[in-house]
Order: sequence, then structure tokens, then C-alpha cells
Amino acid sequence: MAVYTDVSDDALAEFLTGYDLGTLVAFRGIAEGVENSNFSLRTTAGDFILTLYERRVDPADLPWFVGLMQHLAARGIDCPLPVCGRDGEALRRLCGRPAAITTFLPGVWPRRVQLWHCRALGEALARLHLAGADYTPERPNALGPAAWAPLLARAGDGADTLLPGFRDALHDATHRILQDWPHTLPRGTIHADLFPDNVFFLNDHLSGLIDFYFACSDFLAYDIAVCINAWCFEPDFAFNATKARALLAGYQSARPLAAEEKSAMPVLARGAALRFLLTRLYDWLNTPEGALVVRKNPLDYWRRLRFHLGIDNFDAYGL
Amino acid sequence: MAVYTDVSDDALAEFLTGYDLGTLVAFRGIAEGVENSNFSLRTTAGDFILTLYERRVDPADLPWFVGLMQHLAARGIDCPLPVCGRDGEALRRLCGRPAAITTFLPGVWPRRVQLWHCRALGEALARLHLAGADYTPERPNALGPAAWAPLLARAGDGADTLLPGFRDALHDATHRILQDWPHTLPRGTIHADLFPDNVFFLNDHLSGLIDFYFACSDFLAYDIAVCINAWCFEPDFAFNATKARALLAGYQSARPLAAEEKSAMPVLARGAALRFLLTRLYDWLNTPEGALVVRKNPLDYWRRLRFHLGIDNFDAYGL
Repeated sequence: MAVYTDVSDDALAEFLTGYDLGTLVAFRGIAEGVENSNFSLRTTAGDFILTLYERRVDPADLPWFVGLMQHLAARGIDCPLPVCGRDGEALRRLCGRPAAITTFLPGVWPRRVQLWHCRALGEALARLHLAGADYTPERPNALGPAAWAPLLARAGDGADTLLPGFRDALHDATHRILQDWPHTLPRGTIHADLFPDNVFFLNDHLSGLIDFYFACSDFLAYDIAVCINAWCFEPDFAFNATKARALLAGYQSARPLAAEEKSAMPVLARGAALRFLLTRLYDWLNTPEGALVVRKNPLDYWRRLRFHLGIDNFDAYGL
Repeated sequence: MAVYTDVSDDALAEFLTGYDLGTLVAFRGIAEGVENSNFSLRTTAGDFILTLYERRVDPADLPWFVGLMQHLAARGIDCPLPVCGRDGEALRRLCGRPAAITTFLPGVWPRRVQLWHCRALGEALARLHLAGADYTPERPNALGPAAWAPLLARAGDGADTLLPGFRDALHDATHRILQDWPHTLPRGTIHADLFPDNVFFLNDHLSGLIDFYFACSDFLAYDIAVCINAWCFEPDFAFNATKARALLAGYQSARPLAAEEKSAMPVLARGAALRFLLTRLYDWLNTPEGALVVRKNPLDYWRRLRFHLGIDNFDAYGL
């Protein structure tokens, strides 16, 4: 469910007067997404997405996100392009929230990930990294290693309600991952949340990447680790090495990995699993009853984390 | 939230092979609606809505609904038109559920109802009644008077958890309304759920009516009573006689009301309020914690019902 704030017809009509987008034709809430309120917006000028930024997005970060999408789109990446109003501003306010209109991307996100999706994703991710390399403003990863211990502390003893001994196991894993965390890998602008529902495909090719609101400056290979976790495990949590191989081959067709990026992959994959585990754990324990949000089971990522904890080096992935 | 069943890309692609609709361009869940799963579907042939019929719709009723929309669309009513597959069938199955593709209607539903909306709605409702007059198959109103006592019995003592003495008050009101219920008003095909989110407006005119899945054969004036309750009360539950006057004027511009329809309006409005009160009460008491449905407060309709219980005759509305 992704309509937290509904927009009145009056407010929408008034909002649109700030743009050169003709007149309103249709307006529907979009069910996908969990962080912001998203609407399909059709005007006589075409199709767009209207996003109202909700509680989890820091308004101070919005210019960075908008700048990034403009930067990437200008370099040929198929991503939503923020539409500027008559005053040249893409970021505006609507119903008391920051809001922006972006272009509509055709395509459908894959409910069942196939091998060719993984290869196309890998290549698109590398192209994203190359295109983002000269986006110079930095945005620290708010959900990077420095955030993990505090997130775990906020979960408190609640973790044990999911699994006996879970809290201690998470403390151990976090400690171990932080100790092993690399310091000197190639850095740049990463998406940091490139799950299948953020990637559109159309007619057997990748047609677009969306939802850049976790993007940040971090190790490029960490972005690959996020994708390996999100795309290369089967519903029964079995690691699919064939898919990971396709993802990495696609990536390296555009940007070959350095030796140190490969050797860091096991710890990056552990960290990437921990990051989603911890935010899901926090949401699991803190989502009010009756909230219109699907709580994702943190244990799904515990399964991935345990798998990566058993991998000593890159070759052990069997790629 | 209106995506109960997600549709895999494979299943969608296979489903579309049954139609002459070209190839898939985009596919997004729609947030609006509570009964069925709805998706925006764009193909190279244009824009459509894909609906998967969920638990509350009796599959045996679907041919009646599809036939009604085809009947109304053929008579110039702006409503979704079911799209037939290559085999001539509009009703198919997808992901284990009955499913249909309908045409996309432009427009936006009014979040804040204005006077001109009410007038346009009244006229459209009368045109709907005239166009549906020769749709001869009958469908009894499953949520009509015969359903109210059983619905109330199923709520049991739970009503008193909302308001002390609520159960007894509802028993009294139901008894009184059933005693006064008319028997001989003009009948026909009614929409029976024409709330603002089922009516689209575009450029200052009404552009379409959607969601015919409560439509049935009943008193035409009962449909007006449903609309009076849904469109002519302010957020503070004050009856807005000006809006009701506009709605009735719009209606009578296309279909003048008979004297007995006017005199029955207070009891029809009480019954219409009771019907939504009872289903909301049932949902309120029976929606599992964490379900992705906004529970609507039954007391909002108790306020309306109490207002109508104080109206002795049509003139007392001050129209």
C-alpha cells in the first residue's frame, strides 16, 4: 500500500497550475511501494508519477535525490526524471508534504526472477555506477555499517520474540561483520535498494530503474551485494549460483570488478543482509497493529546472512 | 489497498495471449478499492483495468455484471466496458480467480464534494436508471432489507463495544425501517454503491461511473438514497440540503420522481444508511488485525441514520 496521504482534487488542480503539463486526465493511487505515497498522474501532456515524500525521507536529502535522477537521466539511464515547474523547481509541496512529479517509465517488475533478468540487472547496475561516478555531491549511507549497532540496540530484546537467542546471534554477527568491513573499495553513487520491484522489464529487456530514495555514496560492490541477496535466492532461501553468475557477468560486461571487490564480496553480502534484516526487524517490532503496511519477515534475511557467514571467500560461492 | 492477489509476469503474459491487445507496456497495482484486486494495464493497444474478483464477489453473479456494463456502455453510459478475448469471452481466470479486463476511464474522483458534482451525479444516476431499464436479467439485492436482520444478528453483542446500547438501538431501528419499507416503488437496475470514489470527473463534467459489483435490481429511488447519504453529508455529519437539492434536481432533469418515490425517501434513506452501517459494523468486528483494509467507522452511518430517523416526510428535508 503506498497511499498514506490522499490528495484532494482542489489541491491537485492548484498544484498542477505550477507546471506546464496541460490539464488533468486521470489520477489513481499506486499500490506498490512502502515508503512514500505514489500516484499515477495523466495529463494532456502525458503520463507521470506524483510522489509525496512521507516520514522516512529526510526533506534535506530531496535535492540530492532529484539531482541524482536528473544526472543519471542526462547520461542515458532509464530512471524517473523529475519534472520542473514553471519556476524551474522540481521539488514542491502538496498536502503539507514535499512532492515531485517524475516521468512515467514503461515496464513491469518481475514477480518471478529469471536468469536473463539477473544478467540485465547486473549490466544496468554497472551502467548506473558508471553514470553516477561524476555525480559529485556526497550523501552518506544512513543505513550503512555505522547504523547497524544502533538499529540493533533499538530492537532491544524484541528480537528474541522471533527466535530464541536471536538478539545474541545478531550481536555476534554484527560485531563480526563490522570487524571485517573493508575500508578502501572503489566508491561512488549506489542505488542501495535495487530489489525486483524497483526494476522494470519490457519485451525482454530492462526498461527502467526506479525508487532512488535510499541512494547514497558507498562502495559500488556493496550495491552488487544488495542485489545478490534480493535477486539470487530462491523462495526456499537456497542460493542460486547460476543467477549470481549471470548478475556478475552482466555487471562485468560494463564494469569489471577489481580483485579486492571480489574478495570483499562475502562480507559485503553479510552486511547487505544484515542491513535489511535490521530495518525489517525494527519495522516488525514497531509497526502498529492495523497499519497499512506489509511487514516483511526479518528471518528471511537471517537465512541469507547465515548463508553468507558460511562463505569464506569469493570462490566458495561457486561462481 | 486493492491488491489482494499479485499477478506474476509469466501469468500475465500468458493471460494476455487470450486477447487481441498487443503487447504489455506497463502494469501497476491500483491503491483504490476494497473488494477486488485492480491493476492499471497498458498494452500497445491502449489503457485498461485488470480486475481479479476476490472473496466477496460471487462468481455466479459475474456474467450479470459483465452483461450490465456491456448493456450500459452500448447505451452511452460512461462505464468500464469489459473487453472480450479472442474467443469472445470477457470473463476469464487468472491466478485462480475470475478475472476481466475492462476499458480505462479518464477522470478523477472528487475528494471534496462540491455542489456541481452533486447535480452532475444526480443526472448521471437518472441516465443510468433509464439506460438500465431494459436490462432484463434480474439480480436480487443481496444487501437489501432481507439481509439486514441476519447481518445484525451476525454482529451479535459486538456492536456494544462501539457504543453502549448500540445493539438494542440498531435492533429497534432495523425493526422500524423494515415495518415502514415500501413495496411498490418503480424498480429497475441500480448501482447501489455510487460513492464519490466510484464517480470520475474531468474538466468540470462527470466522465464516468465505475465499480458495478453491488449493482442489482431494486427500487430506483433507493439508489438516490444511497447517494444522498454518500454525497450530501459534510465531514461533521451535517446534512447539506443544498447538495441534496442539487442531486435531486440533476436526477429529475432526466427522470422526474413520482410522488410515492419522494414520500418514501426518508425510509429509503434510513435503510440505505442502515445497509452501510451493518456491513461496516460486520467488517469492523471481523477484520483481522493487520489486514490491509481500512476499516470504515460504522458510527459515521449511525449519525446519518439518526438524522433520517428524525425526518418524518420528504418536505422535512428542507429541499
